[in-house]
Amino acid sequence: MNEQLSKMTPFIVMEVLERAQQMQREGIDVIHLEVGEPDFDIPESVMKACQKAYEVGATHYTHSVGNADLRAEIATFYQREYGVTISPDRVLVTSGSSPAILMALMCLCSQGSEVLMSNPGYPCYKNFTLAVRANPVFVRLLTDGSFRYDIEDIRKKITPDTRALFFNSPMNPTGVLSPEEDFAAVASLGIPVISDEIYHGLVYGGKAHTMLEYTDNVFVINGFSKRFAMTGIRLGYMIAPEAYMRPLQILQQNLFICASSTAQKGALEALRNPQAMKDTERMRQEFDARRQYMVQRLRQIGFGIEVEPQGAFYVFADARKFTDDSYKFAFEVLENAHVGITPGVDFGTAGEGFVRFSYANSIENIKEGLVRLEQYLKNRKK
Amino acid sequence: MNEQLSKMTPFIVMEVLERAQQMQREGIDVIHLEVGEPDFDIPESVMKACQKAYEVGATHYTHSVGNADLRAEIATFYQREYGVTISPDRVLVTSGSSPAILMALMCLCSQGSEVLMSNPGYPCYKNFTLAVRANPVFVRLLTDGSFRYDIEDIRKKITPDTRALFFNSPMNPTGVLSPEEDFAAVASLGIPVISDEIYHGLVYGGKAHTMLEYTDNVFVINGFSKRFAMTGIRLGYMIAPEAYMRPLQILQQNLFICASSTAQKGALEALRNPQAMKDTERMRQEFDARRQYMVQRLRQIGFGIEVEPQGAFYVFADARKFTDDSYKFAFEVLENAHVGITPGVDFGTAGEGFVRFSYANSIENIKEGLVRLEQYLKNRKK
Repeated sequence: MNEQLSKMTPFIVMEVLERAQQMQREGIDVIHLEVGEPDFDIPESVMKACQKAYEVGATHYTHSVGNADLRAEIATFYQREYGVTISPDRVLVTSGSSPAILMALMCLCSQGSEVLMSNPGYPCYKNFTLAVRANPVFVRLLTDGSFRYDIEDIRKKITPDTRALFFNSPMNPTGVLSPEEDFAAVASLGIPVISDEIYHGLVYGGKAHTMLEYTDNVFVINGFSKRFAMTGIRLGYMIAPEAYMRPLQILQQNLFICASSTAQKGALEALRNPQAMKDTERMRQEFDARRQYMVQRLRQIGFGIEVEPQGAFYVFADARKFTDDSYKFAFEVLENAHVGITPGVDFGTAGEGFVRFSYANSIENIKEGLVRLEQYLKNRKK
Repeated sequence: MNEQLSKMTPFIVMEVLERAQQMQREGIDVIHLEVGEPDFDIPESVMKACQKAYEVGATHYTHSVGNADLRAEIATFYQREYGVTISPDRVLVTSGSSPAILMALMCLCSQGSEVLMSNPGYPCYKNFTLAVRANPVFVRLLTDGSFRYDIEDIRKKITPDTRALFFNSPMNPTGVLSPEEDFAAVASLGIPVISDEIYHGLVYGGKAHTMLEYTDNVFVINGFSKRFAMTGIRLGYMIAPEAYMRPLQILQQNLFICASSTAQKGALEALRNPQAMKDTERMRQEFDARRQYMVQRLRQIGFGIEVEPQGAFYVFADARKFTDDSYKFAFEVLENAHVGITPGVDFGTAGEGFVRFSYANSIENIKEGLVRLEQYLKNRKK
């Protein structure tokens, strides 16, 4: 069997989720604060566009790189949101954003290439890198509570084998929105950036920037799953440098053929119909209310949150008052308080001592979950 | 850039298609006999199940390996169709069958591994193999007009680095349905087989077998695109050896998360609802009528077809009476007769001198296309 596979790690969050679901089947009421997907329904206009696609015969292969109208609309969207002008020819539509990441790395890396990524960070980055037989190289985040990229550490870790750097703002698991100066600093390093912008649209207070404002040497990863609450529909896209579009198209043709035809119709509607954008704004406001509630309550309970998260739907809380083993702690909380949370170590060794709370759940469930957690931790300390 | 990418070849069929589409935009009426997807609509009951999925909130991530009910139904389907008993735990549901092939190879291969595949054969097999940094090794098909696997040649090409063999029945591009003895012979070689069974259900006269009847050392690739005319929906699956299921799940979680939730609901209906199966039987009968017509007419025109194809929707015709450069010939026919066909060389060097005709088009269009081709070739010979 492929030796790289043995280095890949399963998602711990999935282990938590699967154990939680098993408990639920046994009749136990579990509150999920571990899952990383919006709990909202897909916007109605998007749903109707997907449904209609079946009726008008849009059930056949599309162009490998995606429907021309959707690619153009994505370019327009980036113009409108960020003021960047990109050709629709640089857009590749994919089955969720994950295959886009895989293809970017397949283009950039050879055996022995190095790919920089943050620790803590999204755990799949490491496994994507291993899948293309390159080596993950971890860079620190600042430990002042800001969780910002440590630009100096990135600079130190660049070698002649460095082929790419993962950049993620708003970031999973920290919810941190990188300031403009960090975009500029990363762009100036001169290495290709894989800018994962999947949490754009879920921003509270600040403004999300795209790496395209700072460099063209970037593979922007984005999609419809988070902003439009359509995780199950599997539609994403990549905006890549022009020179890579032909190799990317060959990869897409061979490895995936094309993205879902019906999902592409829905995605077009999502970007074109102002009502869909209004729906996402309503979701964003609800997420924001939950975020504020959760941050305040977690602090009350005794978790450390130095800088408030400004994006995504996660709070990465310092749990060192309660544990130095986040894995054990998460399962202990699940078994005893019946609340699912994600151990920080799932996101890398530097996540140890932290736990990730997701607020992609109703405010009622969040309230109840935190009451359970508080009571459990009170009794536990005795 | 990744050095393996430069070895990958673009689909020539896509070049033909794209040139044909350009001609159509210029107002030229082109008949497509090059494309490899059913021209039928998705069965109505399947469509309705997909549509309903949106309304009942099945728009969120599913379990990474697929919905439990769909996996069970796929196992039941293989029991019903082929009499093989497999555990639903061996089923992995994917976004089309392509990612299943990629993940199987990712599990089986390391750098320098060798993967056996036929020449001619489906061109992506080579490119999948290159994508995982393994080496494609081509085996012959018998040249007696039967296009059967040359078992002796396979045996000769096995080395200590051989990690897998692609087996495809009914086969693209030849339409050949392998006889049972070839299944048994391949199974007895003792190397893992990737059995691409995507054209099952499109069989005329004979009976399709699954490699699972002959060995458990097999990764069966199948899906809903061809049998149920739902290419654009992107839903496929793999039945893998038990020992590989955990690594495959880790790959799926990391690289793809899960297959489309709404497509999975449609797929379940496709296997469960007898009406969907009746719809596919109607399509099969129409394909069969077209096949018989096309074979007879192509022979009349002067193409060589020694053994009639028994599956898929392709005729792989000997065009050596007309050309020894199938690429040039295909574009010549397109430009002059306004008929799209696929050069045999797209499927490997041993396909040179042949062209692939697809009968995934209406009988009227096939008739008209072949009239144009006949007239063009008559005048050309003068």
